[in-house]
Amino acid sequence: MKKQKATKRKVRFNPDNIEVTAKQGDNLLQVAINAGVAITAACGGNGTCGTCKVIIEKGEVESQLTAKLSTEEYERGVRQACQSRIITDVTVNIPVASRLERAVLTREEKEAPGAIATGWQFNPPLRKLYVELPPPTIEDNISDLDRLLRGLKKQYHLSNMSVHFSAVQKLAAALRKGKWKVTVTTLVTALKTSERQKRRLRIIDIQPGDTREQHYSLAFDIGTTTVHGQLLDLTHGRVMAHKIELNRQAGYGADVISRIAYSQKPKGLQKLQQVVVQNINNIIKELLHQTGVDRQNIGHISVAGNTTMTQLLLGLDPKYIRLTPYTPTASFFPPVRADSLGIDVGDTVNLFTFPAVASYVGGDIVSGIVGSGVYQRPELTYYIDIGTNGEIVLGNQDWLVTASCSAGPAFEGGGIRHGMVATAGAIEDCDIKPDYEPVVGTIGDAAPKGICGSGLINTVAGLLNAGIIGRNGHFNTDLDTDRVREGEDGYEYVICRADETATGQDIVITEVDIDNLMRAKAAMYAGCQTLTKSVSLTCADIERVIIAGAFGNSINVENSITIGLLPDLPRDRFTFIGNGSLLGARLTSFSTDILDDARRVAGMMTNFELSENTDFMNNYIAALFLPHTHTGEFPSVMAGERGSLKTQKGGLTV
Amino acid sequence: MKKQKATKRKVRFNPDNIEVTAKQGDNLLQVAINAGVAITAACGGNGTCGTCKVIIEKGEVESQLTAKLSTEEYERGVRQACQSRIITDVTVNIPVASRLERAVLTREEKEAPGAIATGWQFNPPLRKLYVELPPPTIEDNISDLDRLLRGLKKQYHLSNMSVHFSAVQKLAAALRKGKWKVTVTTLVTALKTSERQKRRLRIIDIQPGDTREQHYSLAFDIGTTTVHGQLLDLTHGRVMAHKIELNRQAGYGADVISRIAYSQKPKGLQKLQQVVVQNINNIIKELLHQTGVDRQNIGHISVAGNTTMTQLLLGLDPKYIRLTPYTPTASFFPPVRADSLGIDVGDTVNLFTFPAVASYVGGDIVSGIVGSGVYQRPELTYYIDIGTNGEIVLGNQDWLVTASCSAGPAFEGGGIRHGMVATAGAIEDCDIKPDYEPVVGTIGDAAPKGICGSGLINTVAGLLNAGIIGRNGHFNTDLDTDRVREGEDGYEYVICRADETATGQDIVITEVDIDNLMRAKAAMYAGCQTLTKSVSLTCADIERVIIAGAFGNSINVENSITIGLLPDLPRDRFTFIGNGSLLGARLTSFSTDILDDARRVAGMMTNFELSENTDFMNNYIAALFLPHTHTGEFPSVMAGERGSLKTQKGGLTV
Repeated sequence: MKKQKATKRKVRFNPDNIEVTAKQGDNLLQVAINAGVAITAACGGNGTCGTCKVIIEKGEVESQLTAKLSTEEYERGVRQACQSRIITDVTVNIPVASRLERAVLTREEKEAPGAIATGWQFNPPLRKLYVELPPPTIEDNISDLDRLLRGLKKQYHLSNMSVHFSAVQKLAAALRKGKWKVTVTTLVTALKTSERQKRRLRIIDIQPGDTREQHYSLAFDIGTTTVHGQLLDLTHGRVMAHKIELNRQAGYGADVISRIAYSQKPKGLQKLQQVVVQNINNIIKELLHQTGVDRQNIGHISVAGNTTMTQLLLGLDPKYIRLTPYTPTASFFPPVRADSLGIDVGDTVNLFTFPAVASYVGGDIVSGIVGSGVYQRPELTYYIDIGTNGEIVLGNQDWLVTASCSAGPAFEGGGIRHGMVATAGAIEDCDIKPDYEPVVGTIGDAAPKGICGSGLINTVAGLLNAGIIGRNGHFNTDLDTDRVREGEDGYEYVICRADETATGQDIVITEVDIDNLMRAKAAMYAGCQTLTKSVSLTCADIERVIIAGAFGNSINVENSITIGLLPDLPRDRFTFIGNGSLLGARLTSFSTDILDDARRVAGMMTNFELSENTDFMNNYIAALFLPHTHTGEFPSVMAGERGSLKTQKGGLTV
Repeated sequence: MKKQKATKRKVRFNPDNIEVTAKQGDNLLQVAINAGVAITAACGGNGTCGTCKVIIEKGEVESQLTAKLSTEEYERGVRQACQSRIITDVTVNIPVASRLERAVLTREEKEAPGAIATGWQFNPPLRKLYVELPPPTIEDNISDLDRLLRGLKKQYHLSNMSVHFSAVQKLAAALRKGKWKVTVTTLVTALKTSERQKRRLRIIDIQPGDTREQHYSLAFDIGTTTVHGQLLDLTHGRVMAHKIELNRQAGYGADVISRIAYSQKPKGLQKLQQVVVQNINNIIKELLHQTGVDRQNIGHISVAGNTTMTQLLLGLDPKYIRLTPYTPTASFFPPVRADSLGIDVGDTVNLFTFPAVASYVGGDIVSGIVGSGVYQRPELTYYIDIGTNGEIVLGNQDWLVTASCSAGPAFEGGGIRHGMVATAGAIEDCDIKPDYEPVVGTIGDAAPKGICGSGLINTVAGLLNAGIIGRNGHFNTDLDTDRVREGEDGYEYVICRADETATGQDIVITEVDIDNLMRAKAAMYAGCQTLTKSVSLTCADIERVIIAGAFGNSINVENSITIGLLPDLPRDRFTFIGNGSLLGARLTSFSTDILDDARRVAGMMTNFELSENTDFMNNYIAALFLPHTHTGEFPSVMAGERGSLKTQKGGLTV
C-alpha cells in the first residue's frame, strides 16, 4: 500500500451527539473510545465477543459480515465497531445494548452522565482465556506448562507470561479432566506507566473445559460506618447484586481516631481486622446466595477505603496515622492474597486496594476521583465526600488538590441527641411551617425513630428559615410555640412528640446538636475555601460540584447551601454520584485502563494538612455561622425568598 | 572529551596466564570478567566492597587511592579492579584473596578449574541494601513506603521496584525501631532475556539497622538417594557449612519409578513431600547449629533435583512422568514460598527450583551443566552424572543433547547382594592379586560392611583383570581358589571372610551382582553412543569428559574404562567435579547471571527419549560385555598390560 496523506473524516456518534474528526482507515471502536463514547467491547476489540455492535446511519465503513452478525443485521447496517474501518464521513448509532454504562452503572450514576469516567475500554485486569491444546505424544512430550504457554501464544499471541504456583498445582489434573481444553484465568501484574510498555500477565488459575461464562469479581467500599459490596459479572460487564452492612468495627469506636485508639489495645488490631473481614464474608455469602454464583468463580476483589480502613483490613498497624506528622504505612499497597486475610474465597484471589494520598485522604477518595472522571475533564471541579471524615478534592485534568476536614460524626447522625444512620424510620425531610409546626418525612415512611444526617441539615435549614433559630444557631425563645423548650442540653425543638414516634419518646433537636452540625459544615466549607485559595481561586470559580457518599446522595442542595455547607453556586453545577468510592472500585474491576489511572491519579493529588493550617483555622471560625459570617459568600441565600432570614438580619448578634 | 579511535591494549592476568586485548580506558574488572578470570566483586563493581583488589605488576592503570586501600597497598601496586581504567599494556596479578573460586568452590571443584562456569559476576539475586532516611516532618509526611522507595532511588538509583506485602507489614515498626536506618532485602524477580532489559527487583524484607553482614542462603541438591545442603554467606561469597542426609523417601522406594508408584497411594504424595521436607529442615537445623547463623537471616533457597524429586518436593503429582508420553507438569517451576511447603524458614523466603528439560532429565542436570560451564565452551564435552538415573549430556556452547539412561540402582549399591551407599565401612578399593586373593580398602578404613558403587566397579575390573570372570561376566570355575564358590544366586566370589567383616558374615559378589552392574554400565555407554551418533559423531570425538555425582567423584577412571562404563579416551580428558548439581545451585545463589543462564540452558537442551529408541537398544545389547562386544571401541583396554584380559581373548564365548 502506498503511503499517502491521511484523509480526514467526520464521525458523529448518536445518541450522544458527539462529533470527532478521524482519519480514513481508522478503527471505529478506537475512534469511539478516544471520543469518550461509552461502548462495550468485552473481548478487548479482537472481534470475538460481538458486544460492540453499532448501526451505521449514514456514510460508509469497511466491514465484513462476521460470524457475530446475522445477515439481517448486516443489511440493517449493524457492524462490529472493532472490525470496521472508516471510509467516508459517517454517523454511527450506539444501540442501548452496546452502551457501556447500561451495564456497569447504577441508576444514580446514569443520572449523572457528566460525572463518570469515560474513554476507557472494557478490559478487566482479570481475564478468562479458553484454549484447546493438542494432547501430548512421544514426539511432542513437552511439559504441561510449556504446552499451555505454547497454546496461549498461538491462540492469543501472548508471551512472557508468569505463572502463579497454585496454577501449576492444578495444571496436570485440569488439562486431563478437560481433555486438553481448559480455561485459563490471567491477571495483569504490572501497571502501564508508558504507552509503549506491554502489560504483563500472570496465570493464576486453570479450570477444565470452557468456563468463560463463569467469571466474577467483587468490589467493596469499606467505609468507617458502612461496608458496601457488589458482585460483578466480568464476562458481560454488569453488576449482579449489591449488599450493604454497617461496619462491625463501629462497636469499637465511631470514627477512625477511636478505631486507631482501640487498635493499640492488646489484640485490638486483630479484632478490628477480624470483624471487618466478617463484614466482607457475610456480604460475599449474601451476594452468592442472591445470584447462585459459585464461590470458586470469584477471581478478584477490589477495595476502596480510607487509609485507616485499608490498614485495618490489611492488618497494618495504623498507629502513626494518628500521631503527628501523620504518616500512613504506604500510599500504594501491594496486592494481597485475600484468603491470607481470612476472606472466604479461593487461594488465587488477589485483593487490590486503592492507592491513598495521605493519612486522611485515602483510597476511597482516589477511587471517587477516578470513578467520577474529575481527572479527565478541563472544568474546575469540587468533589466532596461528606461523611465522618469529610474529604474534599479540587481540580481538573491538570492538577488536583485535596484535604480532609474532620467534620466529626454529625453527618452520619453521631454526636446528635436523636441522631441515627439513614435507615428506616430516620427523619429525612423536615419543613417548618409559619406556625412553627414541622412537616416530617421519614425513610420508608416508618414511624420516626431519630434524625439522620440529611434530616439534620433539612431541620436546621427549616428552623433557620422559620426564624426559630438565629444565624448563630441559638434558639429564639420568644416565639409563640411550645415546641421550643428548655431541655437537659439547653434549649431544644421538639420535632416529633412521643405519641408519634416509634420509640415512645419525643424526638428533639438541641442547641448542642445544632452546634455540632455547624462545626461539621464549617470544617467542610473552610476546607473548600482553603483549597481554592491555595490555587489562587475562590469558591465562585468552581464550575462543577460532585457530591459523593451514601449520605451526600440524599442531601438537599438548597438546604445545604442555606446552612453554608455547600458553596452558593448556580444549582445546575451540582451533581450527585452516590457512592463514588464503590463506583471507582467497580470500574477498576471492569477496566485495566482505570486501574492504571488510579495509580496515576493518586500520584497527582497534592494533600493539604488542614490541622495545622492557619488559613483554614480562620476560615473555620468565620464559617461557624448560618450560612456564614461573611454573608457576601452566600448571595442567593441572603437575597432569596426566605423571609425569616431577611427579617432576622438586624436582630442578630454576630 | 573528544571521540577518537580506541587504542588497543594487551592485558595479561596472572596466575591464570590469560592474555586479552582491551581498549584504553576500559574498566579492569569488566575486562577480567569478560576474559573468564574468576575474580570476586561482592558489591557488583561499585567500589564499596574492596573484594576485587588486584596487583598491577607491569604497566599503568588510572585508579585513585580509595578508602578501601591502605597507602601501603597503593604503593605496592594494589588497586580495586572495578575502580581502575586501563592506560597502557598491563600485567595484572589476581591475589588469592580476590579469586572467586577460593570462596565459592569446594576442594574437588578447585581441582577441576576448567570444568567450572566462568565469566559471571558475584551478584546474588538476593541483595541487602542499607538505607538511611530522613525522619518524617509535617512538611514531608509521605507514607513510610514512599519514603523508603525515595531513599532507595536516591542512594542506589533503583526505581520501578515492587514490594511484597509481608515487607509492608514490617515496615512501620522496622523504620522506627531502626531510627529510620534500615536494611532492605531485595530479590530479582524477572530474569534477563536481553541485554537491554533491566532486572526488576522486589523488596521482600525490611530489618531495623544495618544487617548487611547477616545475609545467607541455602543451596540444596535433592537426589533420589541423598540430600545435600549448604549454607552460603551472600555477603562474602563463601560456603559456611555442608550437610548430607540420606533421602528419607528411600523408605518408600529406591528409585523414582517406585516413588511415583508410592505417590499414587492414598496420602502417598503428601507423605513423600513431608519426609523430604523433614530432610531439608533437619539439614537446615544442623547447618545453623554448626555456624551459629540466625534462622531469620536466611533469605533464599535454591534447589536442584531431578524432575520427580522436584515435583515431589513441590507437592505436584508426578503420575504423568511415569506414563507414556512422559510429560512433567512444568519445565520451569515458578518460585514458591518455602514456608508454604513446610520448610522452617521466614515467610519471605522463596524457594527456587532449577528448570528441567524433560521427565527424566531434570533440574539437577541443568544445574550441573550450568555449574560446570559446559554451555560456555567450544570443546565437545560429555557430561555424565552417574546415579540411579544415569543422565548424560553431550555438547558445547552451541548445542546440547541429553538423555536419561535408567542405569538402575547398582551404582548406588542397590540390587547388589552386599551393596551399600558410600559410607564408612563400604569397600571402595579392591585389587586382586595373581593368587586370586583380594586387597581391599574401605571408606574410613573401617571393618568392611559391604560394597559401594565405586567398589563394585573396582572389584569387577579386578576380577576381569585377574581372569576370575570372563568378558561375559561369568565366573571361571576352574581356578585354584576357594574364593570362587557356588552360592544361593549361583557362583560368587568371597571378597571378605566373615571374621574380617563388621557384619560377621562373608561379603561376596555374585554373578547376579555382576550382571546388574553390566546392565547399568551398558545403559550409560549405549546412551553416550546414541547421543554422539545423533549429531553424526562418535565417542572418539569427545574432547572432555566431566564426571559428576557423589558417586562419580569416587570412581576410578581406569577401571571404569576397563568395564566399559566410560569411553576409552586419553585419560587427561577426564575431569571430576563432584556434586555438579549442588555446584550449580550454589552458583545461582551467588550470581544472577548464572540464574539467567540456567533458564537459557534448559531451553537449549534437546532431550532424546531412549526408552523407545531402536539405536539405543542395539547399542545397549552390544554393551552387555566387558568392556564391550566391539572391542575396537576400547583399544587401550584390549592393548593394555592386563595380561588376564589378553589371555582370555581366545577363550571367551561371546
